[in-house]
Amino acid sequence: MNNPSSLKDILASIQPVDPAWIEKAKERTAQLVMPPRALGRLHDFSERLCAIQKTLEPTVSKKAIAVMAGDHGIASESVSAFPQEVTGAMVKTFLAGGAGINALAGHVGADVRVIDMGIIPEIDPATIPGGEALIVRKIRKGTDNFLKGPAMSRQEAEQSILAGFEVASSLYANGYDILGTGDMGIGNTSPSAAIGAVLSGCGVDVMTGPGTGLNAQGLAAKRAVLAKAIAWNRPDPADGIDVLAKVGGFEIGGIAGLILAAAFHQKPIVIDGFISTAGALIAHSLCPAATDYLFSGHCSEEPGHRFMLDHLQLRPILDLGMRLGEGTGAALAMCILDASAKMFRQVMTFAQAQVSGKA
Amino acid sequence: MNNPSSLKDILASIQPVDPAWIEKAKERTAQLVMPPRALGRLHDFSERLCAIQKTLEPTVSKKAIAVMAGDHGIASESVSAFPQEVTGAMVKTFLAGGAGINALAGHVGADVRVIDMGIIPEIDPATIPGGEALIVRKIRKGTDNFLKGPAMSRQEAEQSILAGFEVASSLYANGYDILGTGDMGIGNTSPSAAIGAVLSGCGVDVMTGPGTGLNAQGLAAKRAVLAKAIAWNRPDPADGIDVLAKVGGFEIGGIAGLILAAAFHQKPIVIDGFISTAGALIAHSLCPAATDYLFSGHCSEEPGHRFMLDHLQLRPILDLGMRLGEGTGAALAMCILDASAKMFRQVMTFAQAQVSGKA
Repeated sequence: MNNPSSLKDILASIQPVDPAWIEKAKERTAQLVMPPRALGRLHDFSERLCAIQKTLEPTVSKKAIAVMAGDHGIASESVSAFPQEVTGAMVKTFLAGGAGINALAGHVGADVRVIDMGIIPEIDPATIPGGEALIVRKIRKGTDNFLKGPAMSRQEAEQSILAGFEVASSLYANGYDILGTGDMGIGNTSPSAAIGAVLSGCGVDVMTGPGTGLNAQGLAAKRAVLAKAIAWNRPDPADGIDVLAKVGGFEIGGIAGLILAAAFHQKPIVIDGFISTAGALIAHSLCPAATDYLFSGHCSEEPGHRFMLDHLQLRPILDLGMRLGEGTGAALAMCILDASAKMFRQVMTFAQAQVSGKA
Repeated sequence: MNNPSSLKDILASIQPVDPAWIEKAKERTAQLVMPPRALGRLHDFSERLCAIQKTLEPTVSKKAIAVMAGDHGIASESVSAFPQEVTGAMVKTFLAGGAGINALAGHVGADVRVIDMGIIPEIDPATIPGGEALIVRKIRKGTDNFLKGPAMSRQEAEQSILAGFEVASSLYANGYDILGTGDMGIGNTSPSAAIGAVLSGCGVDVMTGPGTGLNAQGLAAKRAVLAKAIAWNRPDPADGIDVLAKVGGFEIGGIAGLILAAAFHQKPIVIDGFISTAGALIAHSLCPAATDYLFSGHCSEEPGHRFMLDHLQLRPILDLGMRLGEGTGAALAMCILDASAKMFRQVMTFAQAQVSGKA
């Protein structure tokens, strides 16, 4: 099925990774000229890539980071240390090549695509410098303040997931071997924490952190806002679309769509930190098998992140105290995944190297 | 001083990193268009690179891994899961480009140099395929069995350090911005564990692990051998040369020399895992300031490694369950250091990007 007509079709088509491919890849690993599994998690990564790609020649050389951007009505509740206009200004900075993600994606050889999932300003790809990297899939100019009602309609929630699905489908169709997810949206640790609290079952206080830099007073206020918003909206933990609609964001729905596309097309995808993992929680709630195609790029400094990852049973590749978002952790981790694939393909066997095995 | 005439001269010339450069670099970091220090440890890495290189334009693009190889008399005590001839066979595999380090160094754009510090076979760079990557600085054809006396003479210990110093000095002089350390030597977790036990003050049992794959019985025997060897040799923890001579190895002395060269020439160096860190312990015992130029590439699966790193007050960059050696962890970590340097140089300031700071 190459052109699914609905989210339901997509979810019904996703298959878990075939464990027989993992076993085949493990047999190959056992022949590599080194002590048994001496490269630790690199072997796990390369074997999973084999299983996802159904090959013993895994390749993740052509890479892109999809930075999903959206604005948030909840930003009016002083839940962020930065003003809301920074969302659009950072989108322009991504297009100008001047942000953290540009440096790190450039370093690992990944292209950057910025997707306007629903930012407030209108940015025209045809006229802005660097606009060829911008994809406009704007659902609406920012979500509603979910302290006062749902962030978006159920229809908009599905629309945001499908938009992300289509963006990733198009990137994979254009030859990218692997995608990384990224985000930009002032205020978006709030919907992410709310999603994390509802879907992982952890409390709001555990899930809510300082984001871009709230002080203790700001953090306490943010926790109170989120507790109140969840109590008011009563998102249904058994219904990921409901959770996304009531306390989510357009870029978070878009990230869920990217992940579902990876699983649908049987391609690997790397998630970044807190916001991307909220998107993964939505995708997982709709289709648990989708996480088979998912690598966790890094563990964010945002304290709730590790609880989200525990819920998804994902172990992060890197742990460097990062908390920028934008896809920066995904970009660095892609480089490790690429290393694992090259190692799997290039290292000689004991027989080829004429080296004795264990005594 | 460009041509030190003795180890004493080298040690006397090494200066700690200037903290004023760290401060200057931190001021620059604070201007980058992102929340304060949002890239976590990447900022620490880039600022240290600035201080080592005395610049706000840090560069670690030209990279090499120096794989130090040596044989060990202690191998006759059944302390390894692999036979001793694997040392020479793996050296040939490195030169043929077929080992783990070749794949990972190639991935990060690092050249591989293999240094024969004292392996048993004679390998002639002029006739072996790939021999241009081999540097012969053979002290002797393997150390003596340090269960029955010192591994080497005090003079040989100094000679191995100076050989490593000269190799690294030559590489830095040839334009490499950064070196990574690697090792090959069947049996070399034994001298490394002995060095770790003596210099960190941790017990032998804590420091001794399964290496390339001993079972529980083999591990118990290895612990007994090392305890007996230390008791017999009585290495002086206050004298790093004595420790290296009595329970060390030629490649471990060579690694200590690489590190002292980095500090002497004020260049960055990345250490790999357990064996490289034993070399770092020797360098540190001779000159504590040398660790200012040192990055720990990864935390090895070998259980004693984290205690060595604690002693050196180093935090590893990666933690991927690797235990291969060869410089594989150093190679992957170099890629992260390179990312941090590019990030520092390339990310726009708030002013350049015309983005508002914190509200």
